[in-house]
Amino acid sequence: MLSLAGVFPPLPTSFDHQEELLTERMTENIARLNACELSGYLVLGSNGESVHLGTKEKQQVFESCRAAIPSSRLMLAGTGAQSTRETISLTRLAARCGADAALVLNPSYYKGQMSQEVLLRHYFAVADSAEIPLIIYNMPANSALDMDAATLTELSRHPNIIGLKDSGGNLTKMVQIMADAEEDFQVLAGSAGFFLPALSIGACGGILALANLAPQLCLSIFSSFQQGAHNQAADLQKKVIRLNTMVTRGWGVPALKAAMDYIGLYGGPGRKPLPELNDAHKDELFSEITAVIPSDHFWSQ
Amino acid sequence: MLSLAGVFPPLPTSFDHQEELLTERMTENIARLNACELSGYLVLGSNGESVHLGTKEKQQVFESCRAAIPSSRLMLAGTGAQSTRETISLTRLAARCGADAALVLNPSYYKGQMSQEVLLRHYFAVADSAEIPLIIYNMPANSALDMDAATLTELSRHPNIIGLKDSGGNLTKMVQIMADAEEDFQVLAGSAGFFLPALSIGACGGILALANLAPQLCLSIFSSFQQGAHNQAADLQKKVIRLNTMVTRGWGVPALKAAMDYIGLYGGPGRKPLPELNDAHKDELFSEITAVIPSDHFWSQ
Amino acid sequence: MLSLAGVFPPLPTSFDHQEELLTERMTENIARLNACELSGYLVLGSNGESVHLGTKEKQQVFESCRAAIPSSRLMLAGTGAQSTRETISLTRLAARCGADAALVLNPSYYKGQMSQEVLLRHYFAVADSAEIPLIIYNMPANSALDMDAATLTELSRHPNIIGLKDSGGNLTKMVQIMADAEEDFQVLAGSAGFFLPALSIGACGGILALANLAPQLCLSIFSSFQQGAHNQAADLQKKVIRLNTMVTRGWGVPALKAAMDYIGLYGGPGRKPLPELNDAHKDELFSEITAVIPSDHFWSQ
Amino acid sequence: MLSLAGVFPPLPTSFDHQEELLTERMTENIARLNACELSGYLVLGSNGESVHLGTKEKQQVFESCRAAIPSSRLMLAGTGAQSTRETISLTRLAARCGADAALVLNPSYYKGQMSQEVLLRHYFAVADSAEIPLIIYNMPANSALDMDAATLTELSRHPNIIGLKDSGGNLTKMVQIMADAEEDFQVLAGSAGFFLPALSIGACGGILALANLAPQLCLSIFSSFQQGAHNQAADLQKKVIRLNTMVTRGWGVPALKAAMDYIGLYGGPGRKPLPELNDAHKDELFSEITAVIPSDHFWSQ
Repeated sequence: MLSLAGVFPPLPTSFDHQEELLTERMTENIARLNACELSGYLVLGSNGESVHLGTKEKQQVFESCRAAIPSSRLMLAGTGAQSTRETISLTRLAARCGADAALVLNPSYYKGQMSQEVLLRHYFAVADSAEIPLIIYNMPANSALDMDAATLTELSRHPNIIGLKDSGGNLTKMVQIMADAEEDFQVLAGSAGFFLPALSIGACGGILALANLAPQLCLSIFSSFQQGAHNQAADLQKKVIRLNTMVTRGWGVPALKAAMDYIGLYGGPGRKPLPELNDAHKDELFSEITAVIPSDHFWSQ
Repeated sequence: MLSLAGVFPPLPTSFDHQEELLTERMTENIARLNACELSGYLVLGSNGESVHLGTKEKQQVFESCRAAIPSSRLMLAGTGAQSTRETISLTRLAARCGADAALVLNPSYYKGQMSQEVLLRHYFAVADSAEIPLIIYNMPANSALDMDAATLTELSRHPNIIGLKDSGGNLTKMVQIMADAEEDFQVLAGSAGFFLPALSIGACGGILALANLAPQLCLSIFSSFQQGAHNQAADLQKKVIRLNTMVTRGWGVPALKAAMDYIGLYGGPGRKPLPELNDAHKDELFSEITAVIPSDHFWSQ
Repeated sequence: MLSLAGVFPPLPTSFDHQEELLTERMTENIARLNACELSGYLVLGSNGESVHLGTKEKQQVFESCRAAIPSSRLMLAGTGAQSTRETISLTRLAARCGADAALVLNPSYYKGQMSQEVLLRHYFAVADSAEIPLIIYNMPANSALDMDAATLTELSRHPNIIGLKDSGGNLTKMVQIMADAEEDFQVLAGSAGFFLPALSIGACGGILALANLAPQLCLSIFSSFQQGAHNQAADLQKKVIRLNTMVTRGWGVPALKAAMDYIGLYGGPGRKPLPELNDAHKDELFSEITAVIPSDHFWSQ
Repeated sequence: MLSLAGVFPPLPTSFDHQEELLTERMTENIARLNACELSGYLVLGSNGESVHLGTKEKQQVFESCRAAIPSSRLMLAGTGAQSTRETISLTRLAARCGADAALVLNPSYYKGQMSQEVLLRHYFAVADSAEIPLIIYNMPANSALDMDAATLTELSRHPNIIGLKDSGGNLTKMVQIMADAEEDFQVLAGSAGFFLPALSIGACGGILALANLAPQLCLSIFSSFQQGAHNQAADLQKKVIRLNTMVTRGWGVPALKAAMDYIGLYGGPGRKPLPELNDAHKDELFSEITAVIPSDHFWSQ
């Protein structure tokens, strides 16, 4: 089975100032990040503005990124859509483009109808028809639908569903899932804000926006934990917490992109309505970056 | 200015059992509903499964429905998308297809970034570029983002934003909007569950799922209120409440479609993951229909 | 049966600057308000800081206010507590002090255990043992527990439960309750923010914080509605909306008390942690009062 | 400074079947639990039904429990109330009765007014006047008010506020507090559901309902973590998760009391409206207890 152990950055999608797709900037980012011991990359997750792209653009992103990601690293592809048929179609597209696994956000528009039974049927239909394994994506801050432990546990029974990215950060629920899911079900922290707590109860790694910016710090939390260096891991976890919040729940994709520009990667603008980060927030962000990320981890431009 | 007074059904989109679009069934439904004194129709709202359709399918729906809707009745077209550019593009498409106005749901995926400023900029960009007037669509039960009175009031200042469909049902907020918005801003109730309360404080009408099923009852609430027949209006409001909840918040689109099949219109299946209504709920629903809708309001098949 | 028709102010409890109870200020307020056509008064509701008083203080308030409220007007007494036994005990106390009915907020601390069955058993136990009729009090903004229509409907079956004060403002739910509850069950709006919408569907009146400040305006909404003067009622409803929000959800009891001081009644301080209204908010509040309440409705000091 | 390291059970308060206080049953429970290496006890927390007791009863509980708790173990006393003055008064009472520290739940009834500034002023007033140190108690599931990291961090600056019991389980927030609070501020997990995750980032211990039932298992999670036995700690954390949920968020105090009766301590009834645990839930609970707690950890009666 595909191992999801380690750290994965969810790549932002690059646009120019007319909001046109710029895949070459994404591949340049990947080329640089390949220097770090990352286990792979997520393309077209929430940070990748999947909801702002059409199908043809998604295909371009999948193909370009795959070409830049060595076969020794995983390409995880975001393929969730509101309808089951569209989710199946995008998952097949990702497979054709060389994705190693699909990260599938749940449909959530018709919240009132998304019972456990409906969600199971949806995911099982996608998993049955997919040529690549599925990772479930629970992201209540964006979808406003928090899948429960019983549903996620049931999903782990399907042989083609290999893991979960949980961005909700409810550790009690995560423990329950780990207690009940299939033995080989792999749980990934969806944010660096609770990376060490998740590792402490058996998470195999994380898909962390912060890993675009500070891959070495994220990898150090992971390796410190693996080596039993508790205090070091806890100190690193505390060190990154404020910066992580800024580029996730706090100010979101606009902050992540501004931060990437600041450290010498390509961030660029998001598609509207995502705003540009305002100047006061930029000042706070850059000063936090300076405090947390050693300057020799910046990229020369 | 375009008058939005009166009752509008939000048409469900028709599919066959392979989930393929069936526009002829939609136009047959419209042909029948044209017999009632409805002010027009909404196509591709939440009940129209807008989030389950691709752009080409949306165009087919707009064109077919426009052909079936007499020019004396309005065609309102749902055109909201997550990105500003896609929303602009769909609004232009709707205009080219003959829509009288666009109903624009707010973007909501990046909830944390959807400040009042960001929402204003989004809607103003769409309104500036649109060849038809805009109606704002606030639908927190689905979008999980409840636009506040101050934002909605600000939006009313734009000359090309003529109204609001509010499905949140917060009447206190609706009063505040009516007190502060531009004098000619038109507010529509987004559900028959609070139709009379909305009329009592100055709503001009409603876009009501129930109007697909029970147009005469919805029109009677409206006309009773207009004529000052308080008690009759309140009695009708109470009469329809349970049936309305069943086909809206309760069991949603699957119930609305099952109900339409039951009364002799075409409902058919929704696209998955929307489930088929289960048998126990069907029994309850049909028995409530029988209790509320006179049998001579059923359509012969 | 006791009629709850009309307008009731929920009296704030008066304290001096050492936070000691000042019942004489309350009775002076009542003496003035007796000049208006109010149907009665609520003592020790949310605006009465019930949760900040001990049992002896509650008794003093009940006794003093009863002495100041003519027998032709109702005294409604807030008696809800977290335990059933304490609620029973306070309800008996209120009855002994001459209250005409008890307004009983639901227990809510152990939210997870407050099933419909548990709430029914609680209220039925209180109703069975009470010498005065009960009015259910649903106040989700404070209790964080919103009782549902089915529970409230079931409660209406008890012969000693005569009504509901609903401060949640969910009009759809209110319609459902009015459709299903016992015929003579009396529903009161819990805020002037949705007074007219509630009347439009059959509410018999309101317990309105605003009625401490602007009794005539509240009574005018009521009488305009009763007389079928729709537009006038809607205009008044819009006129008071901002002021009402300021003294309820917006800035709460501190604003209500500051407003009472401003118009010549006794407001005084609340018990801490309730803060004093800050100066910027006071300015906004007083200017709104000046805009909404005719100066001849102020009280000479 | 008082050390809060280790495991503390929050003792349920004992009542007879007429709901009268039974302090001797509490002291018998304590006498048995004294055999375990617990760091102390919390009396009159949420599990202690503090909201169901009058002041005299609280004094009886404080005094009786103190007599049964050796001076080498801490007695933490729940003293939070809605008003600042009552909180001060109860904290003084607890100090007079020999409590080592007060656990102070925030006021929450007037949620809309509980700004950071108001909460700081409240807690600082209590801390200034208290003869014993304060531990802040954040319990959003019951209070419906989740104090934020910035507020809790500010509270840590007061010399008489020594720690926090956080029952919210938001580990990201907990990391932020640990990063920003005073160096010697002590954070306690408020539930065994996230005990190990909390320890991993520097919590000093836990106040755990489960420790009433399964003190040895809770102590084993703590000692395994301390000794660097990761896998063992994670396995124990997973082992207890379901049982812990049953006696906390799931079925609450009624389940905790039924479980205590089952293992040979005194649980007894709660005060109404708390229901008795129903038979189906009892079966599930007892079977989970049997699966998780070794029978030689039961108490002979």
